[in-house]
Amino acid sequence: MALSPKFDILAIGNAIVDVTAPVAEAFLSRHDMRKGAMALVDAATAETLYAAMPPAGESSGGSAANTAAVAALLGSRVAYLGRVADDQLGRVFRHDIAAVGVHFPTPPLAGGAPTARCLILVTPDAQRTMNTFLGACVSFGPDDVDPALVADSAVTYLEGYLFDPPAAQEAFRKAAAAAHAAGRQVALTLSDAFCVHRHRAAFRDLVANHIDILFANEAEVTALYETNTLAEAVTHARRDVALAAITMSENGSMVIQGGETALIRAEPTSVVDTTGAGDAYAAGFLAAHTRGLSLQQAGRLGSIAAAEVISHYGARPMRDLSKEMASL
Amino acid sequence: MALSPKFDILAIGNAIVDVTAPVAEAFLSRHDMRKGAMALVDAATAETLYAAMPPAGESSGGSAANTAAVAALLGSRVAYLGRVADDQLGRVFRHDIAAVGVHFPTPPLAGGAPTARCLILVTPDAQRTMNTFLGACVSFGPDDVDPALVADSAVTYLEGYLFDPPAAQEAFRKAAAAAHAAGRQVALTLSDAFCVHRHRAAFRDLVANHIDILFANEAEVTALYETNTLAEAVTHARRDVALAAITMSENGSMVIQGGETALIRAEPTSVVDTTGAGDAYAAGFLAAHTRGLSLQQAGRLGSIAAAEVISHYGARPMRDLSKEMASL
Repeated sequence: MALSPKFDILAIGNAIVDVTAPVAEAFLSRHDMRKGAMALVDAATAETLYAAMPPAGESSGGSAANTAAVAALLGSRVAYLGRVADDQLGRVFRHDIAAVGVHFPTPPLAGGAPTARCLILVTPDAQRTMNTFLGACVSFGPDDVDPALVADSAVTYLEGYLFDPPAAQEAFRKAAAAAHAAGRQVALTLSDAFCVHRHRAAFRDLVANHIDILFANEAEVTALYETNTLAEAVTHARRDVALAAITMSENGSMVIQGGETALIRAEPTSVVDTTGAGDAYAAGFLAAHTRGLSLQQAGRLGSIAAAEVISHYGARPMRDLSKEMASL
Repeated sequence: MALSPKFDILAIGNAIVDVTAPVAEAFLSRHDMRKGAMALVDAATAETLYAAMPPAGESSGGSAANTAAVAALLGSRVAYLGRVADDQLGRVFRHDIAAVGVHFPTPPLAGGAPTARCLILVTPDAQRTMNTFLGACVSFGPDDVDPALVADSAVTYLEGYLFDPPAAQEAFRKAAAAAHAAGRQVALTLSDAFCVHRHRAAFRDLVANHIDILFANEAEVTALYETNTLAEAVTHARRDVALAAITMSENGSMVIQGGETALIRAEPTSVVDTTGAGDAYAAGFLAAHTRGLSLQQAGRLGSIAAAEVISHYGARPMRDLSKEMASL
């Protein structure tokens, strides 16, 4: 049996600053965007698109980084690995994650691409459509994964978006191997249905052979298993992973573990911007899970955290969450 | 009589990116801050304070720049002068003001101080307390004021904060002289009671001799005239300027012109962050005034614009304001 770990969660992902603006539906069609999806864009496209965007707000983002920040706000001990550049937006990212007490040892990239940014268009229905310029993230690789840190973390949490930058897949596998060698768990979020399409074979292999806890929404899990129904996909997931949490937007979430299924209702809130909803859900879930709480409690804390971040613009909480754990 | 101007409003001010975070009341006392005020800080203090701040959101700010952006969103033709650096935050500022159609000809400062930032702490009562590092703003001077642009603007709007950077006072006077030489109007906002204390003699001279339209809140106008009551201060203002709009927070505003007084109620809203309330009021007021609308209509549009920006974090509107003018 492994020693008690120093961290509850080690999150690994693309370190990104979000650039968020409200837009009309017409903006998406004018720019050929798939609503609700994340598209990768190069530097030139990012510049062109930014020039066309309305006034925006900048805030730290990145899927796994959002999860790390929310979990830390819920009282978990959290570390994060991801690559920013040595520039103003990189310092914003570092400040924001350090300010909630997340250990962030990855050094910034000097003299290369700038800090990644995600141009997020929020339509009046609160849906977000994302365009990511990966920038400095493409230099994140296996050398950035310290096996000792992985071994010292109860759960290593990986974002599916990390399949996009070329060197990160290897980092992914290195982290999963180090976690299991130390008797720890590995969690994965599928991130985005189109990301799953881009890397389906690699995802299927990873989920079947290296993942203990799977996070996905309906579109992502059916894309992974190429099924028509959620029920079929859940059957596959039940076989592949020890524990899975499937989010279903306003319909709540479904947590499966072996033959057991827990259904958790969504927390009612006024929805402004859904950016970060899944990230916050995973944070609440893992914060409760790593404290040994029940599936129902874990799902409930996920719902509460998600409700907070979708009630305003930006993917991270704007209020104190320290009392939420105690309220379960 | 002057020709019809190309711009309704030319705003001149410190070009600043806001760094906004919610904090508990204790944060202010721990850092010796005067609640509700704007303090100037040097680069080192800004770094120390930022390190102590919770996760923050970045968005374009600057008092006169906020006014310019809101007026443009209300349909006015607007230009802006102010100095950012050639850095990421400078590009954020430029994007956001250009995205609402404001003409912004001031070139960025290359190789000097970074873009100015204002660290804004928002307490649970929605009050904002500001700490400004002026950065590149200190290089803004008279050479940055093009008299032809001033002459082509119906109202040149100056922020009181411009008294702080050393070279800007001269720019101020140059702009006022150019405006009057062209038969245009000059407006001033007093910005902050402590800013008025720092520069009272200069403000008194400016208001008495060079200003046509004065914007202030109760604290600022009583600080300017060193009176105990708003009524006394209003008597002085009536003598000094052709038109004055005094904002009174949730109590609305008072507009005076010669012997005339219009009282305008505040627009009810749920208050999250008061940053930019006065700036948005001035924008609504000037947008209506430059179209020849009544004092009551001008005050009303000011109240509507202010209500929008105080209903969320950040000093600029998050929704379309294009129909507000027609609703008067």
